[in-house]
Amino acid sequence: MSGSVLGNIFTVSTWGESHGKALGVVVDGCPAGLELSEEDIQKMLDRRKPGQSKFTTTRKEGDEVQILSGVFEGKTTGTPISMAVWNKDQRSKDYGQIAYSYRPGHADYTFDQKYGFRDYRGGGRSSGRETIGRVAAGAVAEKILKELGIEIYAYARSIGPVNIDYSRFSRDEICNNKVYMPDAEAAARAEEFLQGKIKEKDSVGGVVECVIKNMPVGVGNPVFDKLNANLAKAVMSIGAVKGFEIGDGFAAAQNTGSINNDEFGIDENGKIMKKTNHAGGILGGMSDGSDIVFRAAFKPTPSISREQHTVTRDGEEIDMVIHGRHDPIIVPRAVVVVESMAALTIVDLLFSGMSARMDSVKKVYER
Amino acid sequence: MSGSVLGNIFTVSTWGESHGKALGVVVDGCPAGLELSEEDIQKMLDRRKPGQSKFTTTRKEGDEVQILSGVFEGKTTGTPISMAVWNKDQRSKDYGQIAYSYRPGHADYTFDQKYGFRDYRGGGRSSGRETIGRVAAGAVAEKILKELGIEIYAYARSIGPVNIDYSRFSRDEICNNKVYMPDAEAAARAEEFLQGKIKEKDSVGGVVECVIKNMPVGVGNPVFDKLNANLAKAVMSIGAVKGFEIGDGFAAAQNTGSINNDEFGIDENGKIMKKTNHAGGILGGMSDGSDIVFRAAFKPTPSISREQHTVTRDGEEIDMVIHGRHDPIIVPRAVVVVESMAALTIVDLLFSGMSARMDSVKKVYER
Amino acid sequence: MSGSVLGNIFTVSTWGESHGKALGVVVDGCPAGLELSEEDIQKMLDRRKPGQSKFTTTRKEGDEVQILSGVFEGKTTGTPISMAVWNKDQRSKDYGQIAYSYRPGHADYTFDQKYGFRDYRGGGRSSGRETIGRVAAGAVAEKILKELGIEIYAYARSIGPVNIDYSRFSRDEICNNKVYMPDAEAAARAEEFLQGKIKEKDSVGGVVECVIKNMPVGVGNPVFDKLNANLAKAVMSIGAVKGFEIGDGFAAAQNTGSINNDEFGIDENGKIMKKTNHAGGILGGMSDGSDIVFRAAFKPTPSISREQHTVTRDGEEIDMVIHGRHDPIIVPRAVVVVESMAALTIVDLLFSGMSARMDSVKKVYER
Amino acid sequence: MSGSVLGNIFTVSTWGESHGKALGVVVDGCPAGLELSEEDIQKMLDRRKPGQSKFTTTRKEGDEVQILSGVFEGKTTGTPISMAVWNKDQRSKDYGQIAYSYRPGHADYTFDQKYGFRDYRGGGRSSGRETIGRVAAGAVAEKILKELGIEIYAYARSIGPVNIDYSRFSRDEICNNKVYMPDAEAAARAEEFLQGKIKEKDSVGGVVECVIKNMPVGVGNPVFDKLNANLAKAVMSIGAVKGFEIGDGFAAAQNTGSINNDEFGIDENGKIMKKTNHAGGILGGMSDGSDIVFRAAFKPTPSISREQHTVTRDGEEIDMVIHGRHDPIIVPRAVVVVESMAALTIVDLLFSGMSARMDSVKKVYER
Repeated sequence: MSGSVLGNIFTVSTWGESHGKALGVVVDGCPAGLELSEEDIQKMLDRRKPGQSKFTTTRKEGDEVQILSGVFEGKTTGTPISMAVWNKDQRSKDYGQIAYSYRPGHADYTFDQKYGFRDYRGGGRSSGRETIGRVAAGAVAEKILKELGIEIYAYARSIGPVNIDYSRFSRDEICNNKVYMPDAEAAARAEEFLQGKIKEKDSVGGVVECVIKNMPVGVGNPVFDKLNANLAKAVMSIGAVKGFEIGDGFAAAQNTGSINNDEFGIDENGKIMKKTNHAGGILGGMSDGSDIVFRAAFKPTPSISREQHTVTRDGEEIDMVIHGRHDPIIVPRAVVVVESMAALTIVDLLFSGMSARMDSVKKVYER
Repeated sequence: MSGSVLGNIFTVSTWGESHGKALGVVVDGCPAGLELSEEDIQKMLDRRKPGQSKFTTTRKEGDEVQILSGVFEGKTTGTPISMAVWNKDQRSKDYGQIAYSYRPGHADYTFDQKYGFRDYRGGGRSSGRETIGRVAAGAVAEKILKELGIEIYAYARSIGPVNIDYSRFSRDEICNNKVYMPDAEAAARAEEFLQGKIKEKDSVGGVVECVIKNMPVGVGNPVFDKLNANLAKAVMSIGAVKGFEIGDGFAAAQNTGSINNDEFGIDENGKIMKKTNHAGGILGGMSDGSDIVFRAAFKPTPSISREQHTVTRDGEEIDMVIHGRHDPIIVPRAVVVVESMAALTIVDLLFSGMSARMDSVKKVYER
Repeated sequence: MSGSVLGNIFTVSTWGESHGKALGVVVDGCPAGLELSEEDIQKMLDRRKPGQSKFTTTRKEGDEVQILSGVFEGKTTGTPISMAVWNKDQRSKDYGQIAYSYRPGHADYTFDQKYGFRDYRGGGRSSGRETIGRVAAGAVAEKILKELGIEIYAYARSIGPVNIDYSRFSRDEICNNKVYMPDAEAAARAEEFLQGKIKEKDSVGGVVECVIKNMPVGVGNPVFDKLNANLAKAVMSIGAVKGFEIGDGFAAAQNTGSINNDEFGIDENGKIMKKTNHAGGILGGMSDGSDIVFRAAFKPTPSISREQHTVTRDGEEIDMVIHGRHDPIIVPRAVVVVESMAALTIVDLLFSGMSARMDSVKKVYER
Repeated sequence: MSGSVLGNIFTVSTWGESHGKALGVVVDGCPAGLELSEEDIQKMLDRRKPGQSKFTTTRKEGDEVQILSGVFEGKTTGTPISMAVWNKDQRSKDYGQIAYSYRPGHADYTFDQKYGFRDYRGGGRSSGRETIGRVAAGAVAEKILKELGIEIYAYARSIGPVNIDYSRFSRDEICNNKVYMPDAEAAARAEEFLQGKIKEKDSVGGVVECVIKNMPVGVGNPVFDKLNANLAKAVMSIGAVKGFEIGDGFAAAQNTGSINNDEFGIDENGKIMKKTNHAGGILGGMSDGSDIVFRAAFKPTPSISREQHTVTRDGEEIDMVIHGRHDPIIVPRAVVVVESMAALTIVDLLFSGMSARMDSVKKVYER
């Protein structure tokens, strides 16, 4: 609980600051025999790279990943996989007010209070660049899920007031527009809406939704390490996430049991299945065979170009303007981060659940 | 991650089934020198005891807790505190359909799939009685928080469509009504609403809100073990919770940065403080000195007296009625569970954060 | 690391003081479907029960174990197994000097320094009775190992100056004599030697050896969680153990590589095997298919009837005599504890190693 | 328990293979405000660098460490410290028999069995180079200990049959000779002895001893996470260690209680102290204020230039010679590794023990 290590059996340890030498991650507990290349990682990282669209910062970074260990002859060896991305631009520059003032909505103040001082360059450890390690590790996790036939994808469900319309839902559309929405029409409206916010020197929040298909039944645990609980932790650990819900979520709180309960039935293959999915694919903390569906609420980007009132570390009240280009919304770049955190969580629970039954134990150790 | 152990430094290990011999918990990592008695625990447990009101099941249980270890001469010794509550009624009886059918909204199916079979008596490990261990441990955690001047309290914020009105908010009112609402008027309406649901043989959901006052600044960690992330996990691990949000939560997703950002100012004592609290008391994963405010969405009680369609473990489709008296709502009994989970989370983070600075380390080990 | 929790996937949480209400353990992570009864546990516990022989204290305790959760219809359910033993004799009595003085060789002083005070009754948490929880959990672990065809047994290898002679080694003899030696002749000499120590009001140390047969190859990990490292921790965590060695152990430090290296060959079934076993069954932290053989050195019982010099908690120098009957040796009662700790370690590593290869993962989750 | 992560609060995650791109470590949980430079790390690493003497391999490696994160303006920030050493020589070459045969005394066979294949280049993850990450992390830990006034040092106690004579013990001598012995005369004899082994194409084992001075009393825990237990795990996790003992260790097993018990007395400053130190500085799993003294037994270097019999992965029996220059002894290069592992263990226990008492908790969080 030193704070930058996640997972029990599939353990992820991220490191790095926004303007330090590099950022990266060590993944320990990846099974041997998985095909893995730098391209696998890069593809995922590119989905969070800035400069992709006018709604994400244009700083051209590259962010090329290197695998430093744990892969031999194209396959994972079962030993730790270390991955790093070098920061291109580490020039020392004048950070001005940011070095000694507390930006509203940022972690400057809490960092100073907890640690006594902070690496203020570009937000240091609380920068969005910290997610590089998460996504690199998530790419490994997604490869494992793929091997097991489990599919996972995320997308923007809403941007400010603009919601997707499920009647127009198209998974292929997700990567077709700049806001990662599975509905081209909503995407167009969202883009227009964001242009307005840029002009107003303001920012806006949104919701990311994630779907996991083809989960084995019974993944997750009945008490503390419920699948939904571990997903909630993983997703709420992404900076700017303020809410998490699964299935009907907060709407379920206003519903009745007779509607919210998903009745069981038999599908065309004679298999037990739920006829509806208000539960979002999890019953009693364990996957129930239906799609897992959850949502994360993101707050508006805290860095805005308007003048804001705040204080310095010495307790002086000031007005500050945060210079530079800021994304008017976090959501598009966060989609792949949400997906990554979900993948990491599921892999860890899949692995730690392998010994849930004596017959599974025997299956692995029978000679 | 075996599933029933929570916490890193302040570790809680719960055990017990609804109709087994007993239920309980082992708390390891409680500091020595804390005054602790069975009354401290009992008071908290009584808040979740059924038979308190017409909206909670009338089975008279008692649920008297015993402290079996870790306390000597009225004080904790620093060694594990084992607590247990004996089940009074363990008579073997005919569980009928429940033994081999899957109740909608319950974990029967997922248990059978994960473990091959299940203890079907009263829901076994997935019963609401499992929270006895959580609340007993939570009572210890709350005593620790009290010693540090930290206050924590939870209440029903909404029951079905009935919301509290903050203009009538009264903390004293919380334990004055049967639904644990801090607004007598809303409580009266909620009680009436619930009577209707009982007549309809139906159930309803609701929202629990929790407030933590007087937190030291800087509790929680910047990356995975964010205070909000660990709270989310702890709270989402309570059966029936489908959503979690902190501060403005999902509403923040529809807000703008210029409003959502909490500006910093100086209070009357010259201390830095936030002028508003959209963030809910946490910035960058660490407490920021404002009140921590979060909400948990509870689904409707899945056990309802109406006939429901489902399947047996052998794949036969049946209609079933779940006999017995059922709470039409989970929320009132869950209020203390939410509070307990929050207390456990905060204590664990307080303890694991003691070494965040060299000067704190020296403070403890200086000779 | 709160100190009384062991294991990652197969997690053991012990609790209880020598003269508290009860002692016990919670085992989380036991697979479902294992046949388990109180008799299985009792049999193991009886091997550490005092009053078995003239070399162990005659206090008649019974130590009857109760399984409180986690077993249904004779089988483990996959949920936590809680087990407890009630202390019969909790009469308040005058502990005299022990309450405020520091017995040489005991943990009285360090407890007071760490926690500010201590439960001094019968040694509190540092009593040998603390091992009740370990052995009860060990009994569960040994049942799991048995299902996998893994055998484990321990015995006294030496008692003071008396060593067993391997030419007379008989596994059946172990439980035939009061000192748990696999050599009747050595046992007789050891018993005579111990009689002498009792007369001298003194005590003596000894060595326990443990053998694990039929281990799958590859259990354990290459770096920190080596099988030998985890065994060392588990065994050194038993009170009074001062040394641990595996295979040739300290003797290997004086040997040459040409002798110490175990050459590989092919056995009669065409399987790869080591021709010798200087390594003690572990290479690079992982089991190599040969017998695992390790030893634990126990110091002499610190409680002796002679007058000893010491200090009180207030810094007064005194001479003290520890009254009551004391075992002249710890080893015979510790044999089953060593065996238990080894079993717990191996089960945890077996379970956490199930995801070492993608093909094992697929074996469990293939549909 | 994925195997390459150690520690609970002060967490160390090592990565890298002998002939991969780099080796390194991430240290999470280092307190903020510690002065730390690459020189601090390099000094420790240089103590394990080959090419220092004729008894260690002459491959010139450099092993220059880079700090990639977690340090800002010369001080630790409280965020993860990532450190890496680049491998200079990664030329692809023909590894011949080593690629498909099992070297006696090495982990080749167990790696193949556990993971299905292995990175055979230079031993891959089981190479001695894996200790680079341990020592780099150990350097951070030793800086923390220094801040607290705790001293730690290790040295060769014996090399083959050559033991140091404590009457000639000189701490200054340790780094004066090529075998890190604190006795110049023994060192000279050891060097001569090793020359003989080189001529015989053989290798030899030895014992490393480690002393920790000025420990606060009460560090470590009473049950599983005893200071001695965690030290044993950490030290036994070093490749080639076959035994661990603390204080009198195995000799205590042959001693009597009347001698082995360390009586308490009052020192010249009126403080409680032990008059002797058979216990090696730990009572009941907690430091007792005396020097902590432990020993680790190292087996002989398994790589020897003699022909050895073994098998290929396909089960063919062969004779093999391992080419290249081999150290005739592991001990001199392992001294700093033992010291590092001890430092890591103590720091983790110091930090996790800060909440052992309510008054310590209040000391840190009092406002």
